[in-house]
Amino acid sequence: MSVPAVIPFKPKNPKTRLSCVLEPEEREKFAALMLCDVVVAAREGGSDPFILATEPFSFGETPVVHDDRGLNEALNDLISRTPGPLLIIMADVPLTSPEAVRELISTTADIAIAPGRGGGTNAVYLSRADRFQVSYYGPSFQKHLMIAQERGLSCEVIDSFLVHTDVDEKEDLAELLIHGKGMSSRYLRELGFAISAEKGRVGVVRDRSSTT
Amino acid sequence: MSVPAVIPFKPKNPKTRLSCVLEPEEREKFAALMLCDVVVAAREGGSDPFILATEPFSFGETPVVHDDRGLNEALNDLISRTPGPLLIIMADVPLTSPEAVRELISTTADIAIAPGRGGGTNAVYLSRADRFQVSYYGPSFQKHLMIAQERGLSCEVIDSFLVHTDVDEKEDLAELLIHGKGMSSRYLRELGFAISAEKGRVGVVRDRSSTT
Repeated sequence: MSVPAVIPFKPKNPKTRLSCVLEPEEREKFAALMLCDVVVAAREGGSDPFILATEPFSFGETPVVHDDRGLNEALNDLISRTPGPLLIIMADVPLTSPEAVRELISTTADIAIAPGRGGGTNAVYLSRADRFQVSYYGPSFQKHLMIAQERGLSCEVIDSFLVHTDVDEKEDLAELLIHGKGMSSRYLRELGFAISAEKGRVGVVRDRSSTT
Repeated sequence: MSVPAVIPFKPKNPKTRLSCVLEPEEREKFAALMLCDVVVAAREGGSDPFILATEPFSFGETPVVHDDRGLNEALNDLISRTPGPLLIIMADVPLTSPEAVRELISTTADIAIAPGRGGGTNAVYLSRADRFQVSYYGPSFQKHLMIAQERGLSCEVIDSFLVHTDVDEKEDLAELLIHGKGMSSRYLRELGFAISAEKGRVGVVRDRSSTT
C-alpha cells in the first residue's frame, strides 16, 4: 500500500513575494507548475499524492480536497482523521527528487522531517499521523522537533538541499534555474529568466524581450 | 587507505560579508571554528583532512600546506600532482556531516559534487584527481559539470543541504543557529546571536549585551 502524500496549495494570488519579477497570471501558472513538479516527484518516489487546496480547484487526475481554513487547521483536521502514515510536502519545493521522497517515507523513525530554508518544514513524514500535530509558520522545524519530543516520537532529519530549497523570493529562482529539470524551471527559462554571474553567489536576470 | 581531504582556508580578514555583525577578531575566530567543524566532519566521515592556507598558519595536529596563490591556481597545482583520490571541501560549510562526507567519497562515479547555494561548489570528490581541473568562483557548479563532461568523467550530484549551506552572509547564520551542533554555532550563541521569528523565514538578531 502506498503512502498518501498531501500537498497544500493556494491557487489564487500565490507567491506574492515574487511579484517583483512575475505578473499575477505568471505567478499563478508558475505556482501550478511547481506543484506539478512536486506531484511527479511524490508519485515517482512511491507515495500517492493529493492536493489540499484553499479554493475549489482541479488538477488533472490528481485528487483535490478543498478546505478553506488556515494551513495548520486544515492539516491538523486531516491528520487527526489519519490513523496510518502520511507525508506532508509543500507545493513550492519543485526540485524535490523521487529519492528524497523515498528516503522520507522509508524512515525507521516515527517521523522524518526535511527542513526548509530559514527554519521551515518543507516535508514531514508521519508513520502514524494521528499521533502528531503540525505547527507551520515561523521556526516550524524547531516547533515540530519539540512536538515530536513532547509526544515521545523519534525523529529523523532528512538532509536534502533539493527539498530544503523552497521558492519564495527572487534569488531562490537561481537555484531552480541551476538545478531544475522539471516544468517550473522550463517555464522560467521560457519567460526569459537566466542566471547572472555576480561577484559572490549567482543571481537571476529576466530578459522580458524573450517573453512568449 | 583513507582519502585525503583538502580544505582551502584564508586565516586573515576572512568572511568580510559578515562585517556588519562581527568584529574583525570575531570573524577570524568564527572562520577558524567553522574550519574546525569541517575538519571534524571530514575526519569522522572517513577522510584525512589537511588545510591549504593562504598564509603561514598552524591548526593543532591537522597538517597545513601554505600556498599564497589564488584558490584555483593553488588547487590545480595540487590536483595535477595527485594521481589518486582527493576530496576538496570548503572551510565555510560548518554543518557538513560525516554522513555527507562518506557519501561523497564512496561514490561509484568518477567525481561527486555537493553544490553550494547560489551556483557554487562546496565539496567535490575526485576519484583520480589529476584527470580533473577546478574552476571556482561564479557558477562553479555548472563549470565543474562541464569540465567533467569534456573529460568524459561521470559525475554524481550529492543532495545535502548541510553541505549546500555555506556561511557568507548574515542570514546564513540563521541556518547555523538552527541546525548547528558544532563549535562555530556554539560560538555564535556565546556572542549573543539568536534566531528571530519574522514573517517568512527566520532571521538572526544579536544581543551585544551578552557578549563575553
